[in-house]
Amino acid sequence: MSDGNAAWLHPEAFRPLGSRRVLVHGAGVLVDTVFDEVARACAAYGGRARRSGEAAAGPTDLAPASASAGAVNADTGPVDAAPSPAGQVDAGTVPTDADADAGPADAGSDTGVDLVLALRDAAWPGAVDGAAPGDEGFLLTRRDDVPVVLADAPAGLLYGLFHLVRLGESAFDATRPPQRHRPATALRMLDHWDNVDVHPVMGQVERGYAGGSIFWRDGAARGDRARLRHYARLLAASGVNAISVNNVNVHATEARLLTGRLGEVAEIADVLRPYGIRVHLSVTFAAPIVLGGLPTADPCDEAVRRWWAATTRRVYARIPDFGGYLVKADSEGQPGPFSYGRSHADGANVLADALAPHGGLVHWRAFVYNHHQDWRDRSTDRARAAHDHFAPLDGLFRDNVILQVKHGPVDFQPREPVSPVLAAMPATRMAVEFQVTQEYTGQQRHVCYLGPAWREVLRFAPWGPGGPSIADVAAGRRGPAGPAEDEPGRDGPGAAGPGAAGPGTDGAGAVGGGLVAVANVGDDPFWTGHPLAQANLYAFGRLAWDPERDPLAVLDEWIGLTFPASATGDPALVRETLHAVMDDSWRCYERYTAPLGVGFMVQPGDHYGPDVDGYEYSRWGTYHFADRDGVGVDRSRATGTGFTSQYPPPWSAVYESAESCPDELLLFFHHVPYDHVLHSGSTVIQHIYDTHFAGVEQVLAMRQRWRALDGVIDAAVYERVAERLDEQVRSAIEWRDQINTYFFRKSGVPDRRHRRIY
Amino acid sequence: MSDGNAAWLHPEAFRPLGSRRVLVHGAGVLVDTVFDEVARACAAYGGRARRSGEAAAGPTDLAPASASAGAVNADTGPVDAAPSPAGQVDAGTVPTDADADAGPADAGSDTGVDLVLALRDAAWPGAVDGAAPGDEGFLLTRRDDVPVVLADAPAGLLYGLFHLVRLGESAFDATRPPQRHRPATALRMLDHWDNVDVHPVMGQVERGYAGGSIFWRDGAARGDRARLRHYARLLAASGVNAISVNNVNVHATEARLLTGRLGEVAEIADVLRPYGIRVHLSVTFAAPIVLGGLPTADPCDEAVRRWWAATTRRVYARIPDFGGYLVKADSEGQPGPFSYGRSHADGANVLADALAPHGGLVHWRAFVYNHHQDWRDRSTDRARAAHDHFAPLDGLFRDNVILQVKHGPVDFQPREPVSPVLAAMPATRMAVEFQVTQEYTGQQRHVCYLGPAWREVLRFAPWGPGGPSIADVAAGRRGPAGPAEDEPGRDGPGAAGPGAAGPGTDGAGAVGGGLVAVANVGDDPFWTGHPLAQANLYAFGRLAWDPERDPLAVLDEWIGLTFPASATGDPALVRETLHAVMDDSWRCYERYTAPLGVGFMVQPGDHYGPDVDGYEYSRWGTYHFADRDGVGVDRSRATGTGFTSQYPPPWSAVYESAESCPDELLLFFHHVPYDHVLHSGSTVIQHIYDTHFAGVEQVLAMRQRWRALDGVIDAAVYERVAERLDEQVRSAIEWRDQINTYFFRKSGVPDRRHRRIY
Repeated sequence: MSDGNAAWLHPEAFRPLGSRRVLVHGAGVLVDTVFDEVARACAAYGGRARRSGEAAAGPTDLAPASASAGAVNADTGPVDAAPSPAGQVDAGTVPTDADADAGPADAGSDTGVDLVLALRDAAWPGAVDGAAPGDEGFLLTRRDDVPVVLADAPAGLLYGLFHLVRLGESAFDATRPPQRHRPATALRMLDHWDNVDVHPVMGQVERGYAGGSIFWRDGAARGDRARLRHYARLLAASGVNAISVNNVNVHATEARLLTGRLGEVAEIADVLRPYGIRVHLSVTFAAPIVLGGLPTADPCDEAVRRWWAATTRRVYARIPDFGGYLVKADSEGQPGPFSYGRSHADGANVLADALAPHGGLVHWRAFVYNHHQDWRDRSTDRARAAHDHFAPLDGLFRDNVILQVKHGPVDFQPREPVSPVLAAMPATRMAVEFQVTQEYTGQQRHVCYLGPAWREVLRFAPWGPGGPSIADVAAGRRGPAGPAEDEPGRDGPGAAGPGAAGPGTDGAGAVGGGLVAVANVGDDPFWTGHPLAQANLYAFGRLAWDPERDPLAVLDEWIGLTFPASATGDPALVRETLHAVMDDSWRCYERYTAPLGVGFMVQPGDHYGPDVDGYEYSRWGTYHFADRDGVGVDRSRATGTGFTSQYPPPWSAVYESAESCPDELLLFFHHVPYDHVLHSGSTVIQHIYDTHFAGVEQVLAMRQRWRALDGVIDAAVYERVAERLDEQVRSAIEWRDQINTYFFRKSGVPDRRHRRIY
Repeated sequence: MSDGNAAWLHPEAFRPLGSRRVLVHGAGVLVDTVFDEVARACAAYGGRARRSGEAAAGPTDLAPASASAGAVNADTGPVDAAPSPAGQVDAGTVPTDADADAGPADAGSDTGVDLVLALRDAAWPGAVDGAAPGDEGFLLTRRDDVPVVLADAPAGLLYGLFHLVRLGESAFDATRPPQRHRPATALRMLDHWDNVDVHPVMGQVERGYAGGSIFWRDGAARGDRARLRHYARLLAASGVNAISVNNVNVHATEARLLTGRLGEVAEIADVLRPYGIRVHLSVTFAAPIVLGGLPTADPCDEAVRRWWAATTRRVYARIPDFGGYLVKADSEGQPGPFSYGRSHADGANVLADALAPHGGLVHWRAFVYNHHQDWRDRSTDRARAAHDHFAPLDGLFRDNVILQVKHGPVDFQPREPVSPVLAAMPATRMAVEFQVTQEYTGQQRHVCYLGPAWREVLRFAPWGPGGPSIADVAAGRRGPAGPAEDEPGRDGPGAAGPGAAGPGTDGAGAVGGGLVAVANVGDDPFWTGHPLAQANLYAFGRLAWDPERDPLAVLDEWIGLTFPASATGDPALVRETLHAVMDDSWRCYERYTAPLGVGFMVQPGDHYGPDVDGYEYSRWGTYHFADRDGVGVDRSRATGTGFTSQYPPPWSAVYESAESCPDELLLFFHHVPYDHVLHSGSTVIQHIYDTHFAGVEQVLAMRQRWRALDGVIDAAVYERVAERLDEQVRSAIEWRDQINTYFFRKSGVPDRRHRRIY
């Protein structure tokens, strides 16, 4: 690659594919991309890439239609006789379609095929258990002992290609049963909080911990197409198919991306398109005023409606596959419909109506709360705000509006309950928003693999065990339903789904809102600052594709792709060490930071490092109310803010009682005395001490483990991680000591184990 | 004035002088300035300004020598017959010396004189009680019922002029006895913490609360000579005679003021010179490296010595009256001699040797401490640091080195004990550094008249009552000594000095270090943001001139000059209201902020508003150690950091015991339980509650009082103050509630008076 670390597309990961004879069948930009990838791999590892173009070019006799057959017909003719061999591709040479469609004249002993990637047509039909691949899906099957990837749409072929890369040699295992793969949701989106102009406080990337933006620099588009293409390739390999290219806090310069500077967005779209990624734009609700010169942005004003319609037409004229608008309205100072006495449904719908004729979407964020709260007022509860604002609007949004809801009710803390909004709006398309950028989880200076945290959210069943999960909500399924992908062999600890309906019952992309994450990538050579933070980006894409997938299996995939066996001195040691360092790193982070779900306790402003009272007397609505007797936020119906009533049963009752509330969320829901006994048997205060000492011990052990990789993996990666582990140790000790000292000074309760508290 | 509010030189304050016939006698730039001032006033108010030039031009028969006489000789000829009338001066016309020396030919009935300002010479001799005016001093006496100001040096004449302005009509009172005025110290300096380049965090002016810098804007000199001249005039009228034009934190651009950008400093010096103000420069100790290209800045390196000598020669070639260098070394990241294993005496002396041939001074700051302290380490005490570093160096500094010591041992808190360094170095010239800019005292959003606070410092007697005061130390007097100015009629509550020796016993300027303050002025139209903060700047100058002066009398002067009777609707109401709002405002600020001398509890970074634990777990060495049982820092010898031993007796003993320690400093020196009983009879916790409720009540009353001036004073001033009082009320309530809540949550002790605590 021209720029940036190879990340989870290490060249060696392409060796199994690149050392074989591969046929690519189909036409279109994304098929070109597939062929490019294959050709590059073959050039590197001695294989051959061939291509056949339009369906008509393939010999029909080799492709018996078997759309209704249970499995691929083993009687099909040998793939060696596959159509349209294009001859060996020279290193770096990408044949044109004309070359590729040379036809079967070249067939011969040196044109045998070991692998086929084909768009389904008469020449290359196929199904698995009678099911077609579906929009972005693919089938991995075999014909005459040759693996065949079949897709209906070019994007599916691309995803199939990266699936082969993940499988490596095992893709060629003759005993592999046929599989059908489809994404759980059609919307797998990354939001970049990138500013075009450097913001005086937030910098080039708001909450960015990986250097500058890959899109923008000092007020202008970077125009680094090679780097962007590399990024698109990584995203496609993880499953992401949509990206918003500017910060949801839309400042003056960024507002103009919608109109005068649209060309810069179009150029980004041109680079991302070959990898199946649609570009979205964060827009300001005040655009009709600040860009259109209108006197109002009232969504019910006819001139405002016309302005949005006309502006959106111009966007699509330039970017025909434009994804849509992302809006943070009436939130933390951003303008919104409240200024005009209108609802958020009114606000979202005016944009939706403008986008609908073109197939575009509105992502409307539910992150609306009073950010000028008075800390003295214990009755106001920021956790309640999104539900209070949005639940009454269920059913009022257009079909192309997606309500984008942060996974927790407050703000991306390491531990929060699942937002009750996600269970409150059955007639609304809901997207779950995660934060891949580690604002509150160590800012890419700490190892904190977030897959397990997201998995907990995705598997949470708001209506009780056995009912639909949050993943189902995001996929648009409200009733009990199984995974959208029927891949066998899913065998990790998280594999058990909430049910197992057959394929075709979901219709995910049609009505769901999908998964969204705030991106963690910048212009850092390692993309994400901390090399191990790459795993979070990868895992987001993979879990968005398949929320049922075990996050540790995803991590294992990532390890295999990033540190392929053929590129390291001791593959087993690498794998073992990375698992030891990363598997439990999120819970480890939770141990040494704010305890028992109480949240925050971070430095105001930059949110890195501890400051127990940092937000305690602020306007941001994030308090812990610690006094000499106890700590926590009473959000019960009985005596607190009533937030628990926003949950359906059984959770409304589970959370209501300090006795039934899960330990890890106790202080989120209840104010309890320090000697309150947890389900674990420990008291709250002793739990605080114990977990904080344990967390630091664990980080020290992580650092020790990492040293085993010195000389085993790439030195630059090793050093970068080692240096960040030093900072993690320092920071974890600081967290431990500040939290323990704070609570010891307040409670006066000594540590039962007599460890040092200051 | 071309720019900026008139402040304490309201045109109306010049009416008594400007409506008379005034003779100015003498030559030189500063005498030109005096004449300009007189001429302008006369042009405005119908008087006449005349001038006689060199001493030779004056008729000797009217000036009998009386240097040894007790009082001005009443037999002297009538001033009406004074020499060299220059005729009426047209408005705005400043006669040249040639014009002014027209001689007595114009004498006649319309050339009578009501006031004389003269440089002493054979024509205009005089003394008071046998004493000459001295370097910057002046005599105010009478000859033939006409007031006469006599000075030996032009600067004295300028100070005499502004003294007349302060006196107003009373200057012409025939019963006024003759007076001699001299400054207590020759060094009355303002330090501007102004950056040339806008600093990404600190802005144009570090800790500036009055807009941009008056010297610099966006990397370049502003070149606003009219505004600068106005500023110089205000400073001269307050008594300031030295100014440092750039931040003590010397960044890359600012470093170059010493060499490549010296011309910009020279231009400032040119504007300030006519008002008797010498320019100083903050320099970086690393200058030999960063500017000189040397491999080291080791003060004992011969090349380094030569570089400083040569560089300093070039400075004086350009600015012959250059004041000297101000250095913050080995402090908060600034470079210093520690890097080379050298002492601060070595460091200061290399600069001093370079400056000595030219009469320049080094101001070397004693603000050296470990700013990477570990909060866990209770044995390290930032308060000790300056004494630990500098006391052993006493006697090792060159004669032209002044050790510049913050008044308190920590950092400009509203209440600190006096720094023990000031009493620890009898063989070193010591300057006391105050902070006029209100970093920790309300940032010019709160009314906080600091005169009373400074007066407490200046009157503090480190060796016990009756011994020398801090003012004496600054003036270079170690033994019991009286005020340097024998003005009668000093009658305020602070007038009683520690003794009353006659004039001539001090030799102040010769060996003292003087008073220094961090400036509070910016490009704000009111100069200081809050119009009432002008009084702090004025008071600093006046107290530097005469530390024995009652700060409330100074305030009264300021009121009279700023709101002259002839310019307001109700002078008595104005005076009464301003006293009501300002007299006790510092103690009021103390009431609602950090209690009992404990300090800090401010928001980290910007230092505005409360954050009780904001610095509690930081590296800055400013802790309060509050726990559920008590609060305060144990700095005793017996059980604490031993800081009390840095004081001489009796204070070492007074501060050592919690019983004898003054209430207002109790928590600075001792960690005590919340139920510790103060001398006041209240407990610590109840004192905290009471003072915080009382402080807010007082601010509310201040705001109410201010409203009486609506329509009575200038509307812009009224509005600006009213708006800031609203903010002060808001902020004081925030302080009250956060402090009270914090300590209630921690102590669990209820307010005896059952007021609302959150």
